Amino acid sequence: MGRKRVLITGAGGLIGTIVRRRLADRHEVRLLTHEPIDEPSHVADIADLDAIVPAFVGVDAVVHLAAVPDVEAAWEDVLPANIVGVRNVFEAAHRGGVGQVVFASSNHVIGMYEREAAPEIYDADDRREYDERVEPRPDSLYGVSKGFGELIGRYYADRFGLHVICLRIGSVVDRPDADVMHDLARPTDDPAELEHRRRTGAIWLSHRDCAELVARALDADEVRWAVVYGVSDNARRFWDLSAARELLGYRPQDGAPV
Amino acid sequence: MGRKRVLITGAGGLIGTIVRRRLADRHEVRLLTHEPIDEPSHVADIADLDAIVPAFVGVDAVVHLAAVPDVEAAWEDVLPANIVGVRNVFEAAHRGGVGQVVFASSNHVIGMYEREAAPEIYDADDRREYDERVEPRPDSLYGVSKGFGELIGRYYADRFGLHVICLRIGSVVDRPDADVMHDLARPTDDPAELEHRRRTGAIWLSHRDCAELVARALDADEVRWAVVYGVSDNARRFWDLSAARELLGYRPQDGAPV
Repeated sequence: MGRKRVLITGAGGLIGTIVRRRLADRHEVRLLTHEPIDEPSHVADIADLDAIVPAFVGVDAVVHLAAVPDVEAAWEDVLPANIVGVRNVFEAAHRGGVGQVVFASSNHVIGMYEREAAPEIYDADDRREYDERVEPRPDSLYGVSKGFGELIGRYYADRFGLHVICLRIGSVVDRPDADVMHDLARPTDDPAELEHRRRTGAIWLSHRDCAELVARALDADEVRWAVVYGVSDNARRFWDLSAARELLGYRPQDGAPV
Repeated sequence: MGRKRVLITGAGGLIGTIVRRRLADRHEVRLLTHEPIDEPSHVADIADLDAIVPAFVGVDAVVHLAAVPDVEAAWEDVLPANIVGVRNVFEAAHRGGVGQVVFASSNHVIGMYEREAAPEIYDADDRREYDERVEPRPDSLYGVSKGFGELIGRYYADRFGLHVICLRIGSVVDRPDADVMHDLARPTDDPAELEHRRRTGAIWLSHRDCAELVARALDADEVRWAVVYGVSDNARRFWDLSAARELLGYRPQDGAPV
């Protein structure tokens, strides 16, 4: 649980901004971004291995967030950022002697289960729940790319002793947690709005819980390999949090109400 | 079980040559190769989507064998052939309206289990057996790339209705089946040779069984998605053939003796 030198890739993005602010007082944080941001950063494209390797020297742990985040992204965008990029990050971590990589995977690795079970899956009394052992069924090339990241992460863990934790993150939205909670609780009779809220509330990961999940993963020094879901404790949640709780000690503070 | 127009990629390789000869009397076979061979072939690089798309028009099924087959291949070789290439093959099949893809995956998707359990895993009385439900643990970038092929195959199956069968093929060697059997049965007192034979015999897939497995997969019109192992009925075998038998009707005729 000591202070670590932590490199955050994609530090300029939505989750990157949340995470770097939360980790700054616990760890010595270094940033890697595609473009310059408001803090000192190693600016490089993760598709370029040689350009990123120097940022991994003298680092204890990497939080790998850099990716094309669009679920509908085309292959031409997914390939360099999410396939070549994630391989380069694991390779750079290996070459730099980094001990741990926390990889932002995605629920879209198994998104086809949700797609097939919707909208009943969003019912609060629907008992279906998916854990990390279900067969991957990506709903998109984005989901395929995140599954690839898990696969190559497993390879680096098994072959090179890297500690790897994959977080299958839910929906992190660009609005303050309190605003999201407020909106979800607002009265409405609009069926479309209610339907939208049911899904939004089911898969929501608050900023606070997201930052806590990443912080817990970084503290889990004894975990050599794990895949866990990252979601707040929502009433309509359908991803199993057992592994996140047991392996990382994740305790969500937020949760969308019924 | 009707006659199909079957496109074989990688038709000039070891398995491609075995398979195209075996399938020629059952199906209307078309070939795609990287370089010209001794039969008419659509010559193109699978890393180039536009160059291969025309070969997929008017085809009922694809047997996708083209790949860098070297388990120790570097990322720079694996990426175009086994990652971009397999995506291009599924995309070209989708665009061409192809109904079925039989994909030559590999036991190396789960190769780390064998690596960790060797050499005891090769004992004839070792009861460990790995089926298609074990968590992927690739032993190489080659294995990672084959796992990627399965992932994107699942995506094309789920999203676009393509029927996809992934064959996790064992060891196909460039020698006649009878010669392999003869060599395995030859007396020897050399411990290194015995050790070598134990592994060779455990993972062997004869040419005859390999061709039969692919033929059975092509006939399995009702299977929408499957991952099965391809290995002969070897005494020291440690991959589970239940799914191959039950879903495809695979009946290996060969098997390395104890």
